[in-house]
Amino acid sequence: MGEQTRGIAVVLMSGGMDSTVCAAIAHAEGYELAGLHLNYGQRTQEGELRAFRNVCDYYGIARRLVVDVTHLAAIGGSSLTDMSIEVSSADLASAGIPTSYVPFRNANILAIATSWAEVLGARALFIGAVEEDGSGYPDCRQEFFEAFQRVIDTGTKPDTSMRIHTPIIRFSKKEIVLRGVELRAPLDRTWSCYQDSDIACGECDSCALRLRGFRQAGVGDRLPYRVKPVYE
Amino acid sequence: MGEQTRGIAVVLMSGGMDSTVCAAIAHAEGYELAGLHLNYGQRTQEGELRAFRNVCDYYGIARRLVVDVTHLAAIGGSSLTDMSIEVSSADLASAGIPTSYVPFRNANILAIATSWAEVLGARALFIGAVEEDGSGYPDCRQEFFEAFQRVIDTGTKPDTSMRIHTPIIRFSKKEIVLRGVELRAPLDRTWSCYQDSDIACGECDSCALRLRGFRQAGVGDRLPYRVKPVYE
Repeated sequence: MGEQTRGIAVVLMSGGMDSTVCAAIAHAEGYELAGLHLNYGQRTQEGELRAFRNVCDYYGIARRLVVDVTHLAAIGGSSLTDMSIEVSSADLASAGIPTSYVPFRNANILAIATSWAEVLGARALFIGAVEEDGSGYPDCRQEFFEAFQRVIDTGTKPDTSMRIHTPIIRFSKKEIVLRGVELRAPLDRTWSCYQDSDIACGECDSCALRLRGFRQAGVGDRLPYRVKPVYE
Repeated sequence: MGEQTRGIAVVLMSGGMDSTVCAAIAHAEGYELAGLHLNYGQRTQEGELRAFRNVCDYYGIARRLVVDVTHLAAIGGSSLTDMSIEVSSADLASAGIPTSYVPFRNANILAIATSWAEVLGARALFIGAVEEDGSGYPDCRQEFFEAFQRVIDTGTKPDTSMRIHTPIIRFSKKEIVLRGVELRAPLDRTWSCYQDSDIACGECDSCALRLRGFRQAGVGDRLPYRVKPVYE
C-alpha cells in the first residue's frame, strides 16, 4: 500500500473467512481499505467482532465502522437472530432456504455501506458473497448485486462513481482457502461458526462448509474445533 | 377496511404530510396497513414520532414498527443528523443537493421495509417520495425506485411477490394537499418542519414547501406556525 492507491474501498468484513479473503483481494488490488462490520443481533456477535478487529489490525485499517443493526432481530424471521430457534445441523445437500436466513440482509448491508462509501468518497465496495456455496440465499446471487449496482448508480449524487466488487462470488470454499493462502490472508484470525462459543463447534453448516473447503484445498485449518467431523 | 383486503401494505410513515397522504391512498385502495417509522437521528425525531403515532391511531393501524437507524447519524454528512450544521434557510429555487441530504437514505429505508414486509407476507410497499418538489435528492426519483424493485425481485425468496408503490411521486405539494383533503387524511396530525420545536418554524425548506402547497390548493393549513412568511 504505497502513496498511490486506486482510491478507498469499503470492505464488508464480518470477521469470517470469505470476507477476509475479499479484503485480501481488495488490498492486493491496491485499494485503501475501510472496514465495515455489522452487528445484527446474531448469536455469534462477539466472536465476529473480535475477528473483525484482528483482521483490521493485520491490514492496518484505520477507517473502521461498526454498525448496530439489531432492528433486523426485531424484524425477526431467522434462527440467527431469534434465540428460541435452534441452529440447524449441517445439511449441505439441502436445496432449501436455510433457517439462518435473515430476509433481505445483503440489501440492508449494501445500503449502509453505500451511505458510508459516499461520505468517504470511496470508489469501490467489496463484499465477499458466494453464490455457489449451497447456502441458497437469494441476495447472494450475482443477479442481485447487478440490480443493486443500478440502485447505486441512480440513487447517489451525480459525482459519485462507485462499483460493487464481488470477487469471490463464483469461488468454491476450496478456491477461497487457496486464494487466501496465496495472498497471506490471516485465516487463523477469522470466525465462521454459527454457535456462540470460544471454540468453533465443527458441526454447524458454516463450520462444515469451511472444513470441507480446507480439506479439498489440502490445507490445514489452524483454528481449533470442539468436534471435527469425520468424512467419508 | 372490510374482511376482504388486497393484502398487507407496509407504508413508510415519517409523520409528515406526504407519507400520510400516501397512507391514505393505500388505505383507500383496500390494503391492510402496516406502519413503519424510522428514527435516523434527525433533530425532529420526537415530533415526527408523535405524528406517526397519531396518524396510526387515526387509521387504526395495529402493526407498527419503529426502527432506530441512528447509524446514519454516525455515518454523517448531513445537516439533519449533525447538530453542528445549521439548517439551511428556504431556498426553493436552488437546483443543488440540499444540506439536509442523508446519503442514500431511501435505499436504507426500503431495505428495512422489504425485510419487514417479507416477514409479514406483505404484497406492497408504499413510500411517499416526491420527485418534483425541488428537493434534488437522487434517491427520490422514479428511476431509483424502479431499480430498487429489481433488487426486491432478485433478492427476496421465490414465493415473495411485492411491489413498490410511489403514488404521489409526480404530485406537486398542491396536489398532495388536494388528495389529502379528498381522502380525509389527518393533515393536522402531521409534522413537516425541520426544526425541533413544539411549533413549526414556517421558515425552513420543508415548512415553505408545505405552506406553498396549501396556498396553491386554496386550503387552510390548520397547523400553527411560529412565523408565516408573506409571499408575493
